[in-house]
Formats: sequence, C-alpha cells, structure tokens
Amino acid sequence: MKFELTKQYIEELQEQIETGQIDLILEIINALHPADIADVLENLDPSQAKSIYELLDDEKAAEALMELDDDYRTDFLKLFSSLEIAEQVDQLNTDDAADLLGELEDSDQAEVIAQMEDQDHASEIIDLLRYDEDSAGGLMQTEYIIARENWQVRRCVVEMRRQAEEVEKVYSIYVVDSDDRLLGILSLRRLLFAEPTTLIREMYKNERIHYVKTNDSKASVAEIMEKYDLVAVPVVDFQNKLVGRITIDDVVDVIREEAERDFQMASGISENVESNSSILKNTRSRLPWILIGLAGGILSSQIIKGYEGTLEIIPTLAFFIPLIASTAGNIGVQSSAIVVQGLASNDFQMKGILRRVGKEALVGMVVGLICAVIIYIVGYFFSDDIHLAVTLALSLFLVALFAAALGTFIPLALDRIKIDPALATGPFITTANDIIGLSIYFIVAYIVYF
Amino acid sequence: MKFELTKQYIEELQEQIETGQIDLILEIINALHPADIADVLENLDPSQAKSIYELLDDEKAAEALMELDDDYRTDFLKLFSSLEIAEQVDQLNTDDAADLLGELEDSDQAEVIAQMEDQDHASEIIDLLRYDEDSAGGLMQTEYIIARENWQVRRCVVEMRRQAEEVEKVYSIYVVDSDDRLLGILSLRRLLFAEPTTLIREMYKNERIHYVKTNDSKASVAEIMEKYDLVAVPVVDFQNKLVGRITIDDVVDVIREEAERDFQMASGISENVESNSSILKNTRSRLPWILIGLAGGILSSQIIKGYEGTLEIIPTLAFFIPLIASTAGNIGVQSSAIVVQGLASNDFQMKGILRRVGKEALVGMVVGLICAVIIYIVGYFFSDDIHLAVTLALSLFLVALFAAALGTFIPLALDRIKIDPALATGPFITTANDIIGLSIYFIVAYIVYF
Repeated sequence: MKFELTKQYIEELQEQIETGQIDLILEIINALHPADIADVLENLDPSQAKSIYELLDDEKAAEALMELDDDYRTDFLKLFSSLEIAEQVDQLNTDDAADLLGELEDSDQAEVIAQMEDQDHASEIIDLLRYDEDSAGGLMQTEYIIARENWQVRRCVVEMRRQAEEVEKVYSIYVVDSDDRLLGILSLRRLLFAEPTTLIREMYKNERIHYVKTNDSKASVAEIMEKYDLVAVPVVDFQNKLVGRITIDDVVDVIREEAERDFQMASGISENVESNSSILKNTRSRLPWILIGLAGGILSSQIIKGYEGTLEIIPTLAFFIPLIASTAGNIGVQSSAIVVQGLASNDFQMKGILRRVGKEALVGMVVGLICAVIIYIVGYFFSDDIHLAVTLALSLFLVALFAAALGTFIPLALDRIKIDPALATGPFITTANDIIGLSIYFIVAYIVYF
Repeated sequence: MKFELTKQYIEELQEQIETGQIDLILEIINALHPADIADVLENLDPSQAKSIYELLDDEKAAEALMELDDDYRTDFLKLFSSLEIAEQVDQLNTDDAADLLGELEDSDQAEVIAQMEDQDHASEIIDLLRYDEDSAGGLMQTEYIIARENWQVRRCVVEMRRQAEEVEKVYSIYVVDSDDRLLGILSLRRLLFAEPTTLIREMYKNERIHYVKTNDSKASVAEIMEKYDLVAVPVVDFQNKLVGRITIDDVVDVIREEAERDFQMASGISENVESNSSILKNTRSRLPWILIGLAGGILSSQIIKGYEGTLEIIPTLAFFIPLIASTAGNIGVQSSAIVVQGLASNDFQMKGILRRVGKEALVGMVVGLICAVIIYIVGYFFSDDIHLAVTLALSLFLVALFAAALGTFIPLALDRIKIDPALATGPFITTANDIIGLSIYFIVAYIVYF
C-alpha cells in the first residue's frame, strides 16, 4: 500500500526516458502521489527529472515540487525560467507558494511574482511573505472557508461550494462577523446534519475556541494543536480578524524538525544537515563544536600539566584520565537531555530551578555511589594500591554529583535568560564536565596521597 | 488564547476545595478543555484531584483522564474502584479505552471489563487489546463511518447521522463492499456538495487509496500519514476487511515519542524517563550506559597501561589524553546522529553502506585536517617539541577519520541486521571511539618518537 521505490524502478524509468516512451512514463507517473513523484525525481539527475516533470499535470507537478527535499529543489529550480516558476506558483496554495518564493533570491522573487497569472493570488502571497517564517503567519495559508453568523445553513452550503474550489482540505468552517473577526468554529459534520433554515449564529460552538495569533511562534502553534488535538487552527491578527489557517500536516513537519534539531544540537551539529547534504555543508555544521571541544581539550591538557608533579610521582593516575572524563561527560549529557526534553514539553511550568537541580544532583549521587563502589573494587584489584582505589572511588562520586548538577543547571539557566537550552547539551556539557571532572580527580588524588 | 496554569490558580482552587465552594469550582472547571483539566489535576494531590474529578461531566471526566501523564494516571486510578473505572471506560473511545485497560494489571482488567455497562463496546475493546500496542492495531479505534457502494448520497447522510453519534471526529467516510472490504474513501466535503440521488459507487475516489494493515508498525503508520499528509487512515485486516481507523492526533504522539526516544538513546538513557519521573526510575534508566562507559574507561586504562613505558619517557603525552578521547567521541557522535536521523526519515532507500561510510570518512578527513593544523601550531608553541606536535596532528587526523567512519558504519550495520540503530549512538560510540582513539594516539607516538 506504500509505494516502494526500487533501483529497478528507477533504471526502467531511465531507459524509458532515453528511448522516449512518453506514453508509458505518463501512465506510470501520473498515477503516483506527488510525494512519491518527488521521491522518483530525487533519484534522477536534474535534467532527466525535468523532462519527466514537464509531462506531469499542472497541479500534480506543483505539489510534487513542494515535496522535494529543500536542497534538491534549489538545484532543480535553477533549470527553470522565472516564467516557468511563476506557472508553478500559480498552482500552489498560498502557504506553499510563499515558502517556495522565500527560497528564491530577492531579485528572482520579484521577477516570478511579476509573471504570475493570478494577481489576486500573487498579492495574498506577497502578504504572507511579510511574516517571519518561524511565526504562525509564516506557516498559515489564506485558503479557508468562512461563514457569516447571520447566514442560514442553506446559504452557507452554497457559499461553501463556491469557496471550496480553492480550499484543498476543508476541516471546519470559521464563523466571522461583518468585520471578519473570528466568532466561532463549525464542523462540517454539524453542517451536514443541520436543517437548511437554521441560522449559523445558533450553531457555532459556544465553547472556548482555539486560535493562534500571526506573531505566535511556530513552536507554540505546534503545542496548541498537539495539546488540543486540532487538525486545523485559525490564525487572527492583532485586531482579532481572521487572516489564515494552519493545518496539521505543516505542524507535523514543525514537530519533527524541532525534535530533530534538539537531537542534532545535542550531538554537536550546529546547522540543519541531512545525510545527503554536501560535504562542505556537512563539515561547516560540525566544525564549530569540534573546535570548542578541541579548545576544551587544550584547556584540559593545561590542567593536567598543572599536576605534572603529582603525575610523575603516581604515574598510574594517568591511566584513569579517560575514565573520569568520559563518566563526567556521560552523566552530564544525560541530565541535560532530560532537562531539554522537559523544557520542550513544558513540564516545568511551576517548578523552581533549585528544586530541579537538587533532584538531579540526588540522582547523580546515587549513580556516583554505585560507580564508586565498582571502581573501588576494580581499583583495589588493579593495583593493590588502596590510595588509588580511594582516589578513584571518591572522585568518581564527586564527579557524578557535579556533572549531574551542572548538566541540569546550565540548560535551565540558559532557558531562563531566553537562550535555546539545547545549545548547552552535547559537546558543551561534555567539555565543561571533562574539565571539572579532571580538576576534581587531581585535587582528590593530591589530598588522598599527600 | 492558550490556557495558562499558574501557581495562583492552583492555590485559589485548593482554597475553594477546602471551603467546599462546589458551584464555583464546577463553573471554572467545566469550562476548561479536558487537556487543561488534566494539567490542573496533575498539580493537585491525588485525593484533592479526585474530589474535583467527581464533579466533572461524565464525558469530560473520561477525556481528562486520558490526558493525564501516564505515571500520574497510574497513581490516580488506584483511588478508584473497578466499577468507577468501568464507568470511565464506558465513556471512552475504543482506542483510549484499550490503552487505559492495557495499563491495568490483568486481574483488574477483567474485573473492569465485567462491570462495563455497554457490552458491545466492551467486546470491541477486548478485540483491540489483542493487538500489539506498537502496531497499527494497537493504535486504531473502531469508531469510524462506513458507507456501502450501492447507497445513494441521501441514504448515506441518514446512516451517517446514526453512526456519527459515537464517532467524535469525522474526516472521511470509508466505502466498503458487502464483505466489509475497503473500496474507497469519500470526503465529507464531496458528500455535502453531492446530489442526494447520486450513488456512492460513482463518487468515491478512484485513485490509489492509503490504508495500513493491522500488523504494520506504528512507525510505518506515522511515515505514511506524514508522507501523504493524512488526518486519518483506515486500517484493514489480512483479508482487506476494514477494522479500524487511526487519527492524526495519536500519530503526532507517536512521532514525538520516537523523536524523543532517539534523542534519549543518543544521550545514553535506556528507558523512557521524564523530568518528573521518580529518582529510582531516573537512576535505573541511566545506569546501564554509565556502567558500559565505566567498563570502556577501565579498558582505556589498560590500553594506556600497555604504553606505560612510552608514557614514562614522554610524560607530556598524558596531558593530551582527554583531547584525543573527546575529539574522537564528538566526531563519532555527530556522524552517528546524522545516520540515525537519515535512517529514521528513510533517506537511504537506495544507497549502499560503503558509499555512505566513504562520504562520512571524507568529512572526517576534512574536519581532522583542520584540527590537525590547529593542534600542530598549538603543540609546537606548547612545548617546542616538534615530535609532540607531529604526534598530535597526525593522530588527531587519523582519529577524526576513524571516528567518522565508525560512527557511520555501526548504526548502518545495526540497521541492516534489524537492531535499532539509535542504540549505537551516544555512549556506545563515544566509548568505542575513546578506545580506538587512544590506541591510535599511542601507536602514532611510538612511531614518531622511536
């Protein structure tokens, strides 16, 4: 039931392109969903992809274009003239059209808009382009269905039929007053079951209605839609006038992107990169954190150098440097991951920083205690040196405690001063904890031995 | 527009509970959405929560129950008799009811089912309980609207009105034949605009319809709904008979859970844990990877011990142990994160392991080269020891190369043998790369110096 793209499929298609079997290609490709067509195109080189693309129905072509991977689309569009792009934009919903135009250079953007056929459509898209792409305004489309409160159901259905031509998916109808202010939301189901002469005013839900404002962040749009299980949410401007609608499919993308971004940040990747991004982009996204890690490593080397004397007397201490550093890093990363996820899902609404750090420190103590006991036994057998065993056990316990506390405190503190807490996870926490862990280790060793 | 839960709100409510101002509470709380009611309840202690819960309308109460955090719900339900729970289950949709019953002990489950009022509902729920909770069958509900292909639109609307009473959200109508086999999907919009005498057979979409099978994994359900922008998907059994429907709100939860799980795994957390989980659960979920890291640390110590002689002659080498180990870890984690995300979003459909590993190794080489140049300069000024600078630069380059290749290879290989690749990220990769990195470092040092 899912379309499976195979190597064989692509090879056959390539052969059909080369031998010019247009009819066969047309039949195959037009039966596919735009998302599947996009998968096919991405596996062809751009010029072959274009020759297939031009065979598609207008609407399907435009939809497939939006399903392409961003990077591929950028390259692909370079093969098109601005008039050809304008023809695609004419077919798209306003939200997709604005996204597509937003990806173009400013000069190309203006050229494409000037060549669009439907100038009403064009001016709606220009309106949308003014919004920040990370806001509700940047996500919304201007295709939605409205009803006036003084209409009867009969009139509403007639008007809907007119409006529905350009609205691809109708989930509900937004009831507005004569100034376009949002009054209520009406489900299609209720309309279907209503008497033709009932007034809309008597039908729309009197409950708290869920809507967002144009300048709400896309994260908060996702939060509301997820919390209240909405498939579409109306967007109003600062005067409460209805200006757009956001559908769940766009928000699902937001949810996935945010989760992926947190994961990438925690893994020390600073720029959104995909497995098929170029080597340059891939390197650029990775280098900043690696260099910070490198600086941390150099700092660590200075700390160890500071204890050169101790190391000369007890060279065995050097063996356990990676153990201390990696345990500190691992525990810190765990703590910060839990905090970052908690912040992302808004679990902390009413809890203070100190209480949270205290709890994580307690967990760190428990984990540290278990590690300390194990390493004490290992250290004892490893060297017969009771001092080494005590040093390892004691410093591991302290390291776990500090690493957990720091791993909790840093993201919470960053969040409090409105910096993205995900920045703190991964390499940053690891590096900070490496340094603190090693300092603890050598101080403890000094105290135990001398 | 979003309900904001404040400390003040909770305190006022607690006072109202204590002074028995039932009417006031009722008015406030019944105006809230079930998801908001759940937030309020979670911030009260269970006995207070129960006294409010009992004031709620039946349906709202049941819905709020399902919006509670899993851990809280488990504790909360302990305050209820099996008859009270049965009353809640009677109000729930089949999918939620099955989820709730699935959380109970087997003996409690049977008791609750026996006391349900609506035995048809009960038997549907029992059917659902047979499915694996990670499959489409475990996600689906049996509430959906069907139409027969030989009905007229008029009859369809009448039948829908009857069926729609128990279907909370109607997105589309599933057309089935006399054996309940799924034939097509009809949107509400088309029904609303159709002539009353049109036959359903002439209306349903002739295109490829999107459906899933009961034993499909929930990840593949999410993939299909996300790819094709569906708000609901029908579920069929192995005979193609329609048996259920999955709505996007449940799938949004799946998408978030999967993304969070990958992030947690990459951070070395082995069991789903939230910021408000107990200290015991928190510790238990973190200990496995910390202990694996500890074992890796002990192994590292043995490797360094193997080069004790070298270290005695060139003690400066010890200073850079954390630098080598942490860079190896950081680069490996980045590579594996990119691969895990690529696998999760199915980017690799047709690319071989070797090609992927080769590309990542190339990125590792570029990153490694940049690090090598930097560390060569630092090392040179740090000690005036050209041997040290060469050792650091050369081993950092090799470490970056190996770490990137290994970070790519391990998750791809795990995926090939059907083990969750996310397992490989985080502490595992870090530990493996620590060990390999240190070995490279000391071997290079040996070659350079002697």
